[in-house]
Amino acid sequence: MAKAVKGSRAESQDWSDQSQEIGRRARAAARVLAAASTNTKNDALVTMAAALRNSTDTIIKENAADVAAGKAAGLSAALLDRLALTKDRIEKMARSLDEIATLRDPVGEIIEGYKRPNGLQIMRLRVPLGVILAIYESRPNVTSDIAALCLKSGNAAILRGGKESLRSNLAIHKALSEAATSQGLPADALQMVDNPDRDLLAALLREDRWIDVVIPRGGEELIRAVAEQSTIPVIKHYKGVCHVYVDELGDLDMAEAICFNAKVQRAATCNAMETMLVHKNVAARFLPRICRRLAEAGVELRGDERTRRVWPQAKPATEEDWYAEYLDLVLSIRIVDDIQEAIDHIATYSSNHTDAIVSQDLKHVQQFVRDVDSSSVMVNTSTRFSDGGEYGLGAEVGISTDKLHARGPMGVRDLTTYKWVVYGNGQLRT
Amino acid sequence: MAKAVKGSRAESQDWSDQSQEIGRRARAAARVLAAASTNTKNDALVTMAAALRNSTDTIIKENAADVAAGKAAGLSAALLDRLALTKDRIEKMARSLDEIATLRDPVGEIIEGYKRPNGLQIMRLRVPLGVILAIYESRPNVTSDIAALCLKSGNAAILRGGKESLRSNLAIHKALSEAATSQGLPADALQMVDNPDRDLLAALLREDRWIDVVIPRGGEELIRAVAEQSTIPVIKHYKGVCHVYVDELGDLDMAEAICFNAKVQRAATCNAMETMLVHKNVAARFLPRICRRLAEAGVELRGDERTRRVWPQAKPATEEDWYAEYLDLVLSIRIVDDIQEAIDHIATYSSNHTDAIVSQDLKHVQQFVRDVDSSSVMVNTSTRFSDGGEYGLGAEVGISTDKLHARGPMGVRDLTTYKWVVYGNGQLRT
Repeated sequence: MAKAVKGSRAESQDWSDQSQEIGRRARAAARVLAAASTNTKNDALVTMAAALRNSTDTIIKENAADVAAGKAAGLSAALLDRLALTKDRIEKMARSLDEIATLRDPVGEIIEGYKRPNGLQIMRLRVPLGVILAIYESRPNVTSDIAALCLKSGNAAILRGGKESLRSNLAIHKALSEAATSQGLPADALQMVDNPDRDLLAALLREDRWIDVVIPRGGEELIRAVAEQSTIPVIKHYKGVCHVYVDELGDLDMAEAICFNAKVQRAATCNAMETMLVHKNVAARFLPRICRRLAEAGVELRGDERTRRVWPQAKPATEEDWYAEYLDLVLSIRIVDDIQEAIDHIATYSSNHTDAIVSQDLKHVQQFVRDVDSSSVMVNTSTRFSDGGEYGLGAEVGISTDKLHARGPMGVRDLTTYKWVVYGNGQLRT
Repeated sequence: MAKAVKGSRAESQDWSDQSQEIGRRARAAARVLAAASTNTKNDALVTMAAALRNSTDTIIKENAADVAAGKAAGLSAALLDRLALTKDRIEKMARSLDEIATLRDPVGEIIEGYKRPNGLQIMRLRVPLGVILAIYESRPNVTSDIAALCLKSGNAAILRGGKESLRSNLAIHKALSEAATSQGLPADALQMVDNPDRDLLAALLREDRWIDVVIPRGGEELIRAVAEQSTIPVIKHYKGVCHVYVDELGDLDMAEAICFNAKVQRAATCNAMETMLVHKNVAARFLPRICRRLAEAGVELRGDERTRRVWPQAKPATEEDWYAEYLDLVLSIRIVDDIQEAIDHIATYSSNHTDAIVSQDLKHVQQFVRDVDSSSVMVNTSTRFSDGGEYGLGAEVGISTDKLHARGPMGVRDLTTYKWVVYGNGQLRT
């Protein structure tokens, strides 16, 4: 619902005029993009990469202004780090554009095709979704990544970044957009919302006539707010409360390496382990070694009662701990009686993002793979691999925690839909 | 939002208790169904078919009560016809269950699988969506169709039919449910909402913790209300404003047969033609013959100015006519200058359900297939073929007018999602 706008700026009606205009333009551009050749799109991507490199100084200057404003506004060091761009980071963004140019064009793929008894030839043809509204926070590299993924898949993009990175985003967008239009693509293929007002965003989220899908990336609060307000389908990217279950028939050396990697290699990511489940028959052997190693790496351990009998240094875990996405060097630990208890724990507390088993027993592995209803189920490897790049998707739109359309790491293919095409020679329905 | 409940029945809080209980039970059943073998599911389906046949008398008795109440309430003849069950219609429902038993089980399919350079084996495994809430109107055969499709795809179903068919639905549900449990499936695999209160439905539409997807089937108003209220993803089945474009390079005999079939063969369906677009160069030859034939079949014709110069008997078409889904023997006709004008008309007025071209020119056909953004694009055949059965999907969940997840005719496969399964032997992320 649009809140009243303060001051002399505008009435709520004006936002819907503006959002409609943005949507209408995007739709017109989408019709052109859907018909653009792979070569045109790839040429544009390579030109956009070059434009980013050429605009490095301007982008860094604008970014410095964002960072200074962020510091003045008291942004945390972690947020400031996400916000800050360097020559190196811009080069990485450009390289990502070059890479996306080399990906196979998903548009035009015949997903399946067959002939019916009456002679009709039926096929499902992969086509762009149309218009994508991407909403994201601080990190300005998302601007070029999402822009490139939308373009490659033939979609018009409406980009709405965070207020704190607006100047950086506008500089990046200017470089990308000029490059794309120089290759003959419509200027509205890539629109950046230059007004950070939340009421404009709210108005955009109701343009279901012009916008086909909303992809929010950021904190849980942002995503929930978007999902509540939107009349457009939303592909959500919620949190990861990821588990590793160490089975009684697991290789404990492997389990130790996997659990350490899943927790410590990059604790702030959504695919890091937050809870470790350990079979009671191996707890006495396994817990002391992994707990010592984790503690030495600075991990705060919180265990259930049985865990604390084996590793008394652990703090007591509360019910909230089982639901928690720490995104930090904190780990909750629970001892379970058997694999079924581990599966039940995951069914209750997991966010169904990524959950792993360490076991050499085929029956247990099969049971875990079948019964754990998560977007990624890992066997004898780290939850940290749950990632578009690691899955070979080339570049990642995000990690969907929804079940519809796309689940888990989303690549460029997941920004498409299909149309049924039916060729006949005069068949009539009887 | 739950409205206040009148009288002594209950407070709004009670609905959410009830909806939560329904959802929680469905989720528990879904976990069992996801692991059920294909044989168990197929045995249940065949037993359900037999149970329907054995319960024919009871079902017809309960249905007669619904029909009598409907008559007393002043339901239209068309609605009463949809509501009424006969021996023959029940036999058809049973046969449909038998057919669904013969379909290939979509669950467990490995959609794709590959090995990464680090040795990880990655696959996408087809799994059930989980819990499906189906909302539909009058026709009681939907109860058995949807129940069977959900069961085949390993999903728990919550069925919420129309008030006017409640007794019929309950009798059908009783037969199906007893049969399914006799084969070892959980009773909550198939729940029928026996309380037609709209506030209970509103409460169910907010159980996003337990329910994975909502499929509304019925009038546009129902679907829009569901989409507005639901916090659960909805797969919408909106209206069909379908076009046939007769190109200047079309075979006019074929065009006449196709247009007649698309309009007249069953006018009340969503894939019937509502607007005919005719190239100006063939209008003088084509319009008199098709208009005469349509008029003889009782079709009311409404044309633009140019059409009325060729066929003056046509009434003038208004702007609203181009948006209209008549679902009746009414047709709007427009003469266009070229294929681009036809494509632009469709982009403006079509509901993106099904649109057809009649042409022998390859370039025109390619342009139409590429640029018309509809769930089904037909070439030289009738729009009436846009249907799950005609596409060979076996049985149809409905025809999605959404672009996400499933588009166009939805079969049993579209009631599934996938999970990523990753097999390693100790790989760590670096």
